[in-house]
Amino acid sequence: MESKATDITWYKSLVSRADRERMNGHKSVVLWFTGLSASGKSTLAHATEERLFKMDCRTYVMDGDNVRHGLCSDLGFTLEDRHENLRRVGETAKLLVEAGVLVLTAFISPLRSDRESVRSLFPHGQFIEIFCDAGLEVCEQRDPKDLYKRARRGEIANFTGISSPYEDPLNPELRVDSGKSPVEDNVDEIIAILRMRGILPA
Amino acid sequence: MESKATDITWYKSLVSRADRERMNGHKSVVLWFTGLSASGKSTLAHATEERLFKMDCRTYVMDGDNVRHGLCSDLGFTLEDRHENLRRVGETAKLLVEAGVLVLTAFISPLRSDRESVRSLFPHGQFIEIFCDAGLEVCEQRDPKDLYKRARRGEIANFTGISSPYEDPLNPELRVDSGKSPVEDNVDEIIAILRMRGILPA
Repeated sequence: MESKATDITWYKSLVSRADRERMNGHKSVVLWFTGLSASGKSTLAHATEERLFKMDCRTYVMDGDNVRHGLCSDLGFTLEDRHENLRRVGETAKLLVEAGVLVLTAFISPLRSDRESVRSLFPHGQFIEIFCDAGLEVCEQRDPKDLYKRARRGEIANFTGISSPYEDPLNPELRVDSGKSPVEDNVDEIIAILRMRGILPA
Repeated sequence: MESKATDITWYKSLVSRADRERMNGHKSVVLWFTGLSASGKSTLAHATEERLFKMDCRTYVMDGDNVRHGLCSDLGFTLEDRHENLRRVGETAKLLVEAGVLVLTAFISPLRSDRESVRSLFPHGQFIEIFCDAGLEVCEQRDPKDLYKRARRGEIANFTGISSPYEDPLNPELRVDSGKSPVEDNVDEIIAILRMRGILPA
């Protein structure tokens, strides 16, 4: 018995991601929701999570609420800090995916280069980009926290869509019209894609 | 139906941590393994994970291997960077715990203040500190990567136990003699504690 205690390379990643996926009955990937402020990213991510949970899936939503006050509390909103914020979100999502969790992220993530950087962290097919395309006009009408109003008045600098660019995804895995179509219809679409790709059982 | 699509505060954290724990059949906490290099932290963490997996638990091991090349790839080994490394590990462990995962971390984490900082991120009873106390002599004998030899020759600066302090936990939830007692006995002890605290079902 003594030898076991002193052999320190003996146990090494005995539980693999494949083991976890088998236990869970579904694959783990990241669903990356991107779009303007108030385009419905969080709403759709949480609605999708709720549906997945009812299907017995292991899920987690990462958004500004649980990241900006913790993991990224040292970061501000300069371009550099927003890049680092998304990098850490991507790396953390990767750990969660490794742990067997189906991760849903809801960040504006306005730049193609940042989204592509995160995509490159994942093997092909495991980063699913969902463009919440509500249109600026709808987002600005909703404006639940008066952010657009404040940005128009010049009180918020570098506000995406007003004083800072949003680069539409060129080739997202899914584009949803989160301005018009009902949330539940969008969830249906996402679930269909996950089945089609073998992430959820058929 | 139209109204649902435009109500963006409608869905909010509908799946709670308690829901996830119910689905998993166990509570989620962090088991924080601390100790000198080669004290057996990773070995014990992976052995514990394997046992938990066989019990149908959702687990994940965080260690230098999966953190230093990703989430913390921008950090070095100065005191300040080691502090930031552990801060991010703590915050990420918190997200995983929130996601229902029983997290096991294996980092030297030599300073009491750093460990206490991480502990303070968690509600009482959800941070379980496990001191892998193998003794410097045993660790230096094992020296699987010749790190102690190189540190003794002055080739590695600030090496814990040689040229940088390790502060023993004053009041860890568990101290294991990872120098002498067999790994499986230590796993038994950990499982017993998890049952006693209601983290695993009795």
